[in-house]
Amino acid sequence: MSQDQSAIVLDRLYATIAGRRGADPGDSYTARLFNAGRAAITQKIGEEAVETVIAGLAADDAAVISESADLLYHVLVLWADRGISPDAVWQELARRQGTSGIAEKAARPK
Amino acid sequence: MSQDQSAIVLDRLYATIAGRRGADPGDSYTARLFNAGRAAITQKIGEEAVETVIAGLAADDAAVISESADLLYHVLVLWADRGISPDAVWQELARRQGTSGIAEKAARPK
Amino acid sequence: MSQDQSAIVLDRLYATIAGRRGADPGDSYTARLFNAGRAAITQKIGEEAVETVIAGLAADDAAVISESADLLYHVLVLWADRGISPDAVWQELARRQGTSGIAEKAARPK
Amino acid sequence: MSQDQSAIVLDRLYATIAGRRGADPGDSYTARLFNAGRAAITQKIGEEAVETVIAGLAADDAAVISESADLLYHVLVLWADRGISPDAVWQELARRQGTSGIAEKAARPK
Repeated sequence: MSQDQSAIVLDRLYATIAGRRGADPGDSYTARLFNAGRAAITQKIGEEAVETVIAGLAADDAAVISESADLLYHVLVLWADRGISPDAVWQELARRQGTSGIAEKAARPK
Repeated sequence: MSQDQSAIVLDRLYATIAGRRGADPGDSYTARLFNAGRAAITQKIGEEAVETVIAGLAADDAAVISESADLLYHVLVLWADRGISPDAVWQELARRQGTSGIAEKAARPK
Repeated sequence: MSQDQSAIVLDRLYATIAGRRGADPGDSYTARLFNAGRAAITQKIGEEAVETVIAGLAADDAAVISESADLLYHVLVLWADRGISPDAVWQELARRQGTSGIAEKAARPK
Repeated sequence: MSQDQSAIVLDRLYATIAGRRGADPGDSYTARLFNAGRAAITQKIGEEAVETVIAGLAADDAAVISESADLLYHVLVLWADRGISPDAVWQELARRQGTSGIAEKAARPK
């Protein structure tokens, strides 16, 4: 797997997104989202998740890929809007992988 | 950033998840999810997205990190259940990054 | 409470919605929704639910009222699209009310 | 249509729900929900909406009826938690019905 096709694309995308905070809303979709505020950002997460669900139930891998990409992008925007480093999430996922599945689920905070 | 804290954790997590397809549902939460079927998997995506939205609107970064991790995990399970390689999503995200934000949004299929 | 302000408005709204099945999509938003198909209808339910959640967490009753109205409308469209009579849902709710809350929850099929 | 099978069941259900505010959480599922707070209530709205979406896409009217009932119930709990009278929503829906579909959609505040 080349680096261009690894999950590292998410780290690069996050850097791009974070760089658009405070930019002119006319310059990019991302800048407009930041400008619209956190409720607008979370609403997009909800919408893209529903579209991922609907695509996931249909027989169309291309739609799942496209909707998942939309969903991940908007989750990264939320992290950037809150100043959450992606590393904090990767660390959380790595920590969980150290435990077996069912034990891990039981250990979740909720 | 060490590799342990990069997005590559998602590629490793996907490999772990995919390895549990067909495993005894008693062995892990992931195996139980595959066994429960695609509607159960997508339902979890929807639930975790709502929890990410709610955490995203509240003043608690730790909850956003935890719920985002839950959400990403279940999205990976959907990909694995459908046999979608994460690379296909990384490639889609990389492709979009080549275009400017608003132009990119306009070019989305929906 | 006058009849105009009782829940009966839902029964009337359902009749109006159901009457638009098969109508020219150019004639009304409802006709366009039917024409767009079930995935489009359920997507709107998901979107309006997320907006109800976000409004429900903010300090704005007017938004909750407006988003709840949007949500109920799209649920009625789903019922009409499937040919489900609202009475079937009212009957289900009435049936549950005959039991105490926690017992009722325990008796739900999921 | 008998009154027992009209939407009026929602007005009665709302009165029952509102009467459980402040009740002992051990007494009913509704009292537990109020006690758990608004984030828990909205989370349930999101979850039940996703289940309604999934049921709506599958070939099972009984599931749509059951999930829709769950969704409506939790929306009523949100209204009661905020002190929103159902009449405010019925009035909003009646007001919209006075306008044609597409004009109505265009007139929505968002």
